[in-house]
Amino acid sequence: MSKVPAYAALTSAAPLEPYTIERREPGPHDVLIEILYCGVCHSDIHQVRDEWGEAVFPMVPGHEIVGTVVATGNHVTRWKRGEAVGVGCFIGSCRDCGPCRDGEEQYCEKGMNQTYNGLEQDGITPTYGGYSTRITVNENYVLRIPPNMPLERTAPLLCAGITTYSPLRHFGVKARDKVAIVGLGGLGHIAVKIAKAMGAHVTVLSHSPGKKEESLRLGADDFIATGDPEAFFTHALHFDFILDTVSAKHDYNKYLNLLRRDGTMVLVGIPDPVPLSAAALVMQRRRLAGSLIGGIRETQEMLDFCSEHGVVSDVEIISIQRINEAYDRVVASDVRYRFVIDLSSLKTP
Amino acid sequence: MSKVPAYAALTSAAPLEPYTIERREPGPHDVLIEILYCGVCHSDIHQVRDEWGEAVFPMVPGHEIVGTVVATGNHVTRWKRGEAVGVGCFIGSCRDCGPCRDGEEQYCEKGMNQTYNGLEQDGITPTYGGYSTRITVNENYVLRIPPNMPLERTAPLLCAGITTYSPLRHFGVKARDKVAIVGLGGLGHIAVKIAKAMGAHVTVLSHSPGKKEESLRLGADDFIATGDPEAFFTHALHFDFILDTVSAKHDYNKYLNLLRRDGTMVLVGIPDPVPLSAAALVMQRRRLAGSLIGGIRETQEMLDFCSEHGVVSDVEIISIQRINEAYDRVVASDVRYRFVIDLSSLKTP
Repeated sequence: MSKVPAYAALTSAAPLEPYTIERREPGPHDVLIEILYCGVCHSDIHQVRDEWGEAVFPMVPGHEIVGTVVATGNHVTRWKRGEAVGVGCFIGSCRDCGPCRDGEEQYCEKGMNQTYNGLEQDGITPTYGGYSTRITVNENYVLRIPPNMPLERTAPLLCAGITTYSPLRHFGVKARDKVAIVGLGGLGHIAVKIAKAMGAHVTVLSHSPGKKEESLRLGADDFIATGDPEAFFTHALHFDFILDTVSAKHDYNKYLNLLRRDGTMVLVGIPDPVPLSAAALVMQRRRLAGSLIGGIRETQEMLDFCSEHGVVSDVEIISIQRINEAYDRVVASDVRYRFVIDLSSLKTP
Repeated sequence: MSKVPAYAALTSAAPLEPYTIERREPGPHDVLIEILYCGVCHSDIHQVRDEWGEAVFPMVPGHEIVGTVVATGNHVTRWKRGEAVGVGCFIGSCRDCGPCRDGEEQYCEKGMNQTYNGLEQDGITPTYGGYSTRITVNENYVLRIPPNMPLERTAPLLCAGITTYSPLRHFGVKARDKVAIVGLGGLGHIAVKIAKAMGAHVTVLSHSPGKKEESLRLGADDFIATGDPEAFFTHALHFDFILDTVSAKHDYNKYLNLLRRDGTMVLVGIPDPVPLSAAALVMQRRRLAGSLIGGIRETQEMLDFCSEHGVVSDVEIISIQRINEAYDRVVASDVRYRFVIDLSSLKTP
């Protein structure tokens, strides 16, 4: 084991503060990664503040990790020292259930091992995330960052990128499809870029009329301000696919009615339960689905796709010392569009 | 025009009573049908009692119609006098929108013309349903009843049959899939037979433990009493597909959790809005969809499929004079499983 500097929450009420964790020496199938950047996901805040239950403290958040390989175990042949790699939302899974065998480890029936606020495969050792300078990860849960991707802008793809890429790909979005992205935050702004790169006609739906200009700058073809009740009438039966990235409670039925026959709306956020009218589904055989991040194979596919199409996140780089201030700004939706921690700030405080 | 005996509700508070309607003489593309049997659908009661709004009186219900062709218009070549035919939930549609062009007239964007409680394509003439002895219908909305099908047991297929066949087929249920049918009423009992004929492993979920024996008799492989809260734990992640036929309000989330990854649950009833937890969808990328009856092409396919596999409805034949009593029994779920009116009772009262 070696001691590694980190930032941790010691309780759900405490701000994050400097903390020292231990990382295991690489086993035969492990990769030791020096963390260069880590994105700040809204779910970090939910978990640190124990808003989802099941929080374990001390907690070192962070699951949008990029860095370089510094050491590998004896049996590791796929990864080389100095290579740019990433780690996303999970660092293990049972590898035996149906989803795992299909490479959809995020749906592991025994529960994936979360990168932080979880347990390692031994079922005992707590996992600590990317708000630290090093991490040891089984080689099967490491992603290759394609050459020439700017690492700090790639970090958010490990969660926000795959969370939006996976449903767009899985539900078959194709060129010229009319796609709506609901919400223009950390997830939504990457969703716009990815959907556009897939050739779709992309419309942003947002309650903030001021986001129109931003939406078009990010590549959207159109913008609908959802505060205007008329908008839901004039755009009825309009979209083939809706990706709903909003975590705050909102009326799904209104959005479903914007779908054409056989259209699909996919939720990636988990608001409090919302009254659902069966009629909104029955009337045009619409589908409401959910989607959870993506598997390792698909995450690699997403990184390669983003590299090919020049898709990266818009970010604000911060030092780890500014993390608590950043959390407040994320909660206030005051970030364009993702905070990314430069972990060099943790090495030379 | 010719006068035709019928049973009608004159107001939403009145029982059905004898009433005389007029049917048009067959135009060039019309078929005049002598009605032999008409099924009693729960939606007849909802509409007669104006529980869905937009009820127009006098109302002659009935959209599970079987009979024989007695006359055809000059340009009709597909239908012959004496042939056994059916009419389902609609007798017209715009024939021009996307759904109509795709043969999915039930999703006509201008609104299909309902067989009763609607208007003909002229937008003026009210439509009257199958609680009558004759009906004149455009040839494109007539179904062929395959030879040797018992007509009285075939009538319910025109609504209950296609309502359950369509989602089972459209969402790709195949041999050995684990399929759950929620609710064992008019829709559910046919759904069991159709799903079984498709080769699926069929489980009935019902709040009435007493329906186990009936379920197995109808062909189900298994039965789950939903009053037992344990059942929802022991069968989690179990089904590939759930067809939910229940119109009373119930908790979708509990049922969704019975689906495996990428499983689909389809609603064909329209209960009052139900609080939906996004987590139930997100966690295994599940889908909740709706489905509305079926198009003409698919309804014909369903009739041919049922003929081939010997699927017909379990029915109680009644005279039209017993219709109000039958309605009370439908509301009390006291029918196995569909009332069918023998319209000869209306000719010789």
